[in-house]
Amino acid sequence: MKALVKMYPERGAVLRGDLPVPEVRDGDVLIRVKKVAICGTDLHIYNWNAWAQGRIKPPLVFGHEMAGEVVEVGRGVKRIKVGDMVSAETHVPCGVCYQCLTGNAHICSNMKIVGVDIDGAFAEYILLPEVVVWRNEGGISLEVAALQEPLGSTFESVMVEDIAGKDVLVLGCGPMGLLAIAVARLGGAASVVATEINDYRRELALKMGADYVFNPLDKDVYSKVMDITKGKGVDAVIEMSGSPAALSFGLDVVTAGGRISLVGLFPGSIDVELTSKVIFKGVRLYGITGRKFYSTWFKMGNLLSSGRLDVIGKLITHRFELEDFEKAFDLMNTGNCGKIILTVS
Amino acid sequence: MKALVKMYPERGAVLRGDLPVPEVRDGDVLIRVKKVAICGTDLHIYNWNAWAQGRIKPPLVFGHEMAGEVVEVGRGVKRIKVGDMVSAETHVPCGVCYQCLTGNAHICSNMKIVGVDIDGAFAEYILLPEVVVWRNEGGISLEVAALQEPLGSTFESVMVEDIAGKDVLVLGCGPMGLLAIAVARLGGAASVVATEINDYRRELALKMGADYVFNPLDKDVYSKVMDITKGKGVDAVIEMSGSPAALSFGLDVVTAGGRISLVGLFPGSIDVELTSKVIFKGVRLYGITGRKFYSTWFKMGNLLSSGRLDVIGKLITHRFELEDFEKAFDLMNTGNCGKIILTVS
Amino acid sequence: MKALVKMYPERGAVLRGDLPVPEVRDGDVLIRVKKVAICGTDLHIYNWNAWAQGRIKPPLVFGHEMAGEVVEVGRGVKRIKVGDMVSAETHVPCGVCYQCLTGNAHICSNMKIVGVDIDGAFAEYILLPEVVVWRNEGGISLEVAALQEPLGSTFESVMVEDIAGKDVLVLGCGPMGLLAIAVARLGGAASVVATEINDYRRELALKMGADYVFNPLDKDVYSKVMDITKGKGVDAVIEMSGSPAALSFGLDVVTAGGRISLVGLFPGSIDVELTSKVIFKGVRLYGITGRKFYSTWFKMGNLLSSGRLDVIGKLITHRFELEDFEKAFDLMNTGNCGKIILTVS
Amino acid sequence: MKALVKMYPERGAVLRGDLPVPEVRDGDVLIRVKKVAICGTDLHIYNWNAWAQGRIKPPLVFGHEMAGEVVEVGRGVKRIKVGDMVSAETHVPCGVCYQCLTGNAHICSNMKIVGVDIDGAFAEYILLPEVVVWRNEGGISLEVAALQEPLGSTFESVMVEDIAGKDVLVLGCGPMGLLAIAVARLGGAASVVATEINDYRRELALKMGADYVFNPLDKDVYSKVMDITKGKGVDAVIEMSGSPAALSFGLDVVTAGGRISLVGLFPGSIDVELTSKVIFKGVRLYGITGRKFYSTWFKMGNLLSSGRLDVIGKLITHRFELEDFEKAFDLMNTGNCGKIILTVS
Repeated sequence: MKALVKMYPERGAVLRGDLPVPEVRDGDVLIRVKKVAICGTDLHIYNWNAWAQGRIKPPLVFGHEMAGEVVEVGRGVKRIKVGDMVSAETHVPCGVCYQCLTGNAHICSNMKIVGVDIDGAFAEYILLPEVVVWRNEGGISLEVAALQEPLGSTFESVMVEDIAGKDVLVLGCGPMGLLAIAVARLGGAASVVATEINDYRRELALKMGADYVFNPLDKDVYSKVMDITKGKGVDAVIEMSGSPAALSFGLDVVTAGGRISLVGLFPGSIDVELTSKVIFKGVRLYGITGRKFYSTWFKMGNLLSSGRLDVIGKLITHRFELEDFEKAFDLMNTGNCGKIILTVS
Repeated sequence: MKALVKMYPERGAVLRGDLPVPEVRDGDVLIRVKKVAICGTDLHIYNWNAWAQGRIKPPLVFGHEMAGEVVEVGRGVKRIKVGDMVSAETHVPCGVCYQCLTGNAHICSNMKIVGVDIDGAFAEYILLPEVVVWRNEGGISLEVAALQEPLGSTFESVMVEDIAGKDVLVLGCGPMGLLAIAVARLGGAASVVATEINDYRRELALKMGADYVFNPLDKDVYSKVMDITKGKGVDAVIEMSGSPAALSFGLDVVTAGGRISLVGLFPGSIDVELTSKVIFKGVRLYGITGRKFYSTWFKMGNLLSSGRLDVIGKLITHRFELEDFEKAFDLMNTGNCGKIILTVS
Repeated sequence: MKALVKMYPERGAVLRGDLPVPEVRDGDVLIRVKKVAICGTDLHIYNWNAWAQGRIKPPLVFGHEMAGEVVEVGRGVKRIKVGDMVSAETHVPCGVCYQCLTGNAHICSNMKIVGVDIDGAFAEYILLPEVVVWRNEGGISLEVAALQEPLGSTFESVMVEDIAGKDVLVLGCGPMGLLAIAVARLGGAASVVATEINDYRRELALKMGADYVFNPLDKDVYSKVMDITKGKGVDAVIEMSGSPAALSFGLDVVTAGGRISLVGLFPGSIDVELTSKVIFKGVRLYGITGRKFYSTWFKMGNLLSSGRLDVIGKLITHRFELEDFEKAFDLMNTGNCGKIILTVS
Repeated sequence: MKALVKMYPERGAVLRGDLPVPEVRDGDVLIRVKKVAICGTDLHIYNWNAWAQGRIKPPLVFGHEMAGEVVEVGRGVKRIKVGDMVSAETHVPCGVCYQCLTGNAHICSNMKIVGVDIDGAFAEYILLPEVVVWRNEGGISLEVAALQEPLGSTFESVMVEDIAGKDVLVLGCGPMGLLAIAVARLGGAASVVATEINDYRRELALKMGADYVFNPLDKDVYSKVMDITKGKGVDAVIEMSGSPAALSFGLDVVTAGGRISLVGLFPGSIDVELTSKVIFKGVRLYGITGRKFYSTWFKMGNLLSSGRLDVIGKLITHRFELEDFEKAFDLMNTGNCGKIILTVS
């Protein structure tokens, strides 16, 4: 079969056409991949940045935000059937650790990540254990179905506390931040403010429903946010940038008693003002990763089927065939895009 | 001053023009009333039904869903100023009971209700303790401002648990049920189903954003709701009808692990199937009354200012001068209306 | 093998010695049963009451509160090993319904109950799917291990909201109520009040840690509870009696804003005063059944290992060999006992 | 009257005998102080450390953990009466900000702290607004009553999430950490582990109920904690030390999905590993300060009245007359004490 492979410990990837289709064992589901979105993680692997160098062991098929069709199921598979249109929950839990046994499989102690620890979705076929295969209901396009994985993390981060009627700040408008804007609007936030350095993405932020979008490099953003919130500050901060400066800003403008969801990955340990900005303000910080099995997927499925989240279609700004992966990764490196979808013909 | 008074223990009310303007004491706020919406409670008092006969002690100025302007404040008033445009939180708490001291003033043990226990808002002036006076921000019309009181209870009932991505059923489409539909849509419900016997109100339910509205007297409503929810039943039921049959239906169609918010008032004690429909299904029932001080008001104010709840303007179907109160109450008795607003000129 | 079988649709049961040991298939665990506690459900089956007549299909091995040792595991079993000392989570979930997929397997839509729907634990061997087998850590006696199943439901019912520093009322002091007293004390309740008609069980209630125990048939229990709580009423009610009168009393004495956990099974639908006692008081009712997979079991295991719940040993008042089951059930029918443990030699 | 005054911007304090008794105005309560405990904040003021130099404006009567008797009340006081035995909630809220109006008065935006921003309790008399005066029920000693203020913050920090059956780690065994141990035991923690450098305080930690106490400077504390928790790590960390190294340790040993309560004050901003230890582990951080009005006080009162928290009497290791304040502060500087109580004769 055809697959995009991280072959060597260096920048780039190799499109191969000679890989064997994976063999189905007990509990496995074999999927013909149709659409794959490119994630920031894929870009790190492609660019071979410091994180990738420490984590990835070539050769590896990468990619994980996918939609496809089930072509074979192994012994013991109970829920998924041949012909189902499915997407992948990309965090593969062990099923036996404390987290897995207490409703926290999404932060399993022995997690394997699709396209990072095991072969991924930039390929004609992907083999997954049934536990991470989600059946998409009719009416959801393949492209949008491929976005459910990042949408799910975003949903967790926005909805970890109630949002209706509250003032929300999204820090960073990469694809995750853009999804957060859509989810905050969906959930009835009274105002959605966003910050982003890139001009293209500030435009996209408005299209996704942000009420206000600021360039954090501008001087008076603090006072603007305080004005918008009538002096009280925002109730909720969704940190999607991975920037220490952004977090510091979020701690400044969050109201006493508010909360901050942490999703963006910071480069190593960072300086945080906990005493005056977290303790004295009674603020809560939530580390968010992955998606709950499967309550979040059910909610996303419902919302996408009913058309309540049609706005996320606007997030898809570019489309390529898998064969044109180099153009796709080059574009993504410029930042002048929303989500890029690869078709696996 | 002018006021609509429940003078005698019988149906009807008397519009008087000779009442003294109330005298302002420590902690009091005097308000020139501009708009008052008619509540179901007002209709009970006007009709002099069994509840009213047991609770109301004439003479009483009734009415409580109001908007007006502050004209005088007493000694010790700290937050409210002359000229403020305000609405009334109609549950007057004692300030010293266990509930008041633990963040539950909205269910104070010694509660006085405006227009029920103390003189209300169908009048040129109303005198209220500062603790129940809420300042409306600019940009909210007087008419919509008068709806915040019922909107607030509705908000509590819908949002007592998270709603985004979930299937919601609203039982009864009187004004409270209609507001619940709007709030469920605002909060990102995946589907909003409603039931209502009255044709006029089923029409209004669709205008407020319901995805499906059924007449509960039809035969196959159960199977329709199960189909809409793909066989699982609804996640949340908002009971606004006060009908035992409606609650029984809600208990049938709520999914195991779901919840039911109880707002509509049932006529005395009623028969409930707790064992098979609440205990074995792991269902939660929430008794909801009033509105939290003042988190719910802040959220409503934010949402109305930002235009996110403009839909509730559609709830106002009729307008009268206070002098035409008889026409207003007669119309309300037919059920062929949404909210009726009285202007106090 | 030996087993106590409900053979015929009538009162009683038959101890047989000629049953085949169950055959182990994929995912199954075969357990040599050591100790079994008798549950109220077992008594219903033995007595062949109305519920049993409608639910049980003889022949059936009943019994489910058990502890034993694993002797064989089937293909695909990952977590449990031969030699493990285990107990049974008796609610067997289907694994594929909405509830199972969203962290609510304990209220699975297709639940099978051990000893009710499938063969149970009054036997030398029991066969269970791995998903309901819990490994007991060292230091927990077999007898106490057999009590974890009812302890777990009790734990859920007491801890569904925070309890530390609060006034708690337990209605009914059968084994579940007695466990609730112990759990409320464990969790730091400020006061634990209980009601119970049976003299023997009122004595046991004090041994389990109740601060006050009343006979609900006495005249002045309401005023006594209000005095104990300084006039505010109790913060939490744990309904373990299944008596409509007890629930009505609980609704009277729960403080506004308090909550009621419903565990005891009422005989069919019952009359409930929702308007004045639930809605106007802002009370929450929780239907509680089963135990969460497996957070509650982890907590119980931790507490039993550390000796923090040693008090529940006092709950075991009588012990018999399985062969003496008639004496055990006769005693249980008198109500003059706590938990009865059967040994399967 | 007599009072201990921070007179000059330098180390120490002056016991004066010539201050006027404060004059009672609207809403005020005048209290004859009986017992005052010394808080770490008082020590900072006495020692005139960097924080004190930036915050305190001499002359100031300091001290705030107190118990006394009401001798006069001002106009408008509703709840408190002359003769009441009372303690002070030391965070004086403004009553009009967003936090005050939404149930978060304990983190008021315009907070004044007793003994820091306004005159405190190291004096014969203290004048407080009624809103921060709490009436102690009979049966609580004056000394224990004076400990309720720090006990309350501790209670919030331990109970911000459920604790029963969980493994808890307390970092730092100063008086706050020692109280946290008692509260964690009260709330049914399965195990309570503590760390502390000072030998005297490690001894006290065991007396307060810790199951294990370690010196964090020892080499193998990490593996010991992991062994105690069977490899999963602790469920909850209560950070009472204000030490960055302690927080880092807490982040290491908290289980994925666990939480950390932050109470100890760090010296300025500190380095925190958010990505791998908070985000990837799905951990929640709670900034905790003050105590909720007045739910926490009710719970403390209930628990102290019922004797459930008698253990905190062991925290009081030394007693002095106010006149011997120098000895008291010197002792406190050594760290070889629990709580020190000053009597104001």
